[in-house]
Amino acid sequence: MSPRGRRPGGADTRTVILDAARSEFADAGYDSTSLRGIARRAEVDPALVHHYFGGKAQLFAAVMDIPADPAVLIRRIVEGPREDVGEALVRTFLALWDSPEGRPRFQALIRSAITHEEATRMLREFLVREIFGRVVRGLAREGEPLADVELRAGLAASQMVGLAMLRYIVEFPAVVQASHDELARLLGPTIQRYLAP
Amino acid sequence: MSPRGRRPGGADTRTVILDAARSEFADAGYDSTSLRGIARRAEVDPALVHHYFGGKAQLFAAVMDIPADPAVLIRRIVEGPREDVGEALVRTFLALWDSPEGRPRFQALIRSAITHEEATRMLREFLVREIFGRVVRGLAREGEPLADVELRAGLAASQMVGLAMLRYIVEFPAVVQASHDELARLLGPTIQRYLAP
Repeated sequence: MSPRGRRPGGADTRTVILDAARSEFADAGYDSTSLRGIARRAEVDPALVHHYFGGKAQLFAAVMDIPADPAVLIRRIVEGPREDVGEALVRTFLALWDSPEGRPRFQALIRSAITHEEATRMLREFLVREIFGRVVRGLAREGEPLADVELRAGLAASQMVGLAMLRYIVEFPAVVQASHDELARLLGPTIQRYLAP
Repeated sequence: MSPRGRRPGGADTRTVILDAARSEFADAGYDSTSLRGIARRAEVDPALVHHYFGGKAQLFAAVMDIPADPAVLIRRIVEGPREDVGEALVRTFLALWDSPEGRPRFQALIRSAITHEEATRMLREFLVREIFGRVVRGLAREGEPLADVELRAGLAASQMVGLAMLRYIVEFPAVVQASHDELARLLGPTIQRYLAP
């Protein structure tokens, strides 16, 4: 362990919290990790964790180097008309992935999620709880069984993960060259049918 | 190089051809590799390569440890009525992936394709040329631009690759637990819309 005294705050505290969060998420997965546990490991007051990162989803996004605030993503997807949610989701993800700072970090994230089991688990729990779970719960039909809702969320995730694989990892030429408009037109109805049939 | 004399045929010849094919595919990719070049590297008559493996697609499937003959897969998908091609494709892939011998080899294949660039390229060229390319060309509408056909093939591939990712790598619970019937019912119309709109 590196020698650490009390830290009143500052650039270094942010790094210490990030390091502690990385270890806690890796040890316990996303769901079982608490901000309190991260604060304890970082030897800081839990209020400081809130101050620097907002909440668990934002802290996780920082740890995984995801260049977006999950809460903002979700709002952008679900705030529009229900009949446009499919296209909105496709466009929101493409804008994130194709941004200059997003692309290399996103490729690294996919590779790590596939080759390291702990990264796979963290990312799965995060995607279920914070992204697709929230979108689908926001759109669930009354009385629909939870298992059906979760399957629909999973299939929407499968289409977006597959798109990311073909466009950024496998680099299938026609999918790499397609514009956001083309992809939104072709994939939008698929996501729409899964999320808001 | 290992010392090798002339081989009249037998179990060892098959292995020598496989090794040569693995090197040729890795060096040149799928498209630029010829059976003649593989035979030259293996120091056998090209007729022997045909004898043991049939053709390039079958030899590639053997090299990549894909437990199925691509030609048989394609026939199974396109031989039925056009309006059932989506469900047929989903069911054919699931039957292959969920077979006891298919599952572990398939997981290894995905991991290798993602972490090794040469494997990514080989698999991409193989999928484009032998699988999705053939299916889509078999179903293309008259006069449709080739670029559109290829994009539709790529999107079908993206949905199936994403399904494989969520079911076998990320292990998203609802997608792992879904039956073949459920997945065919929910994903079949997606593949149908991409391949035969």
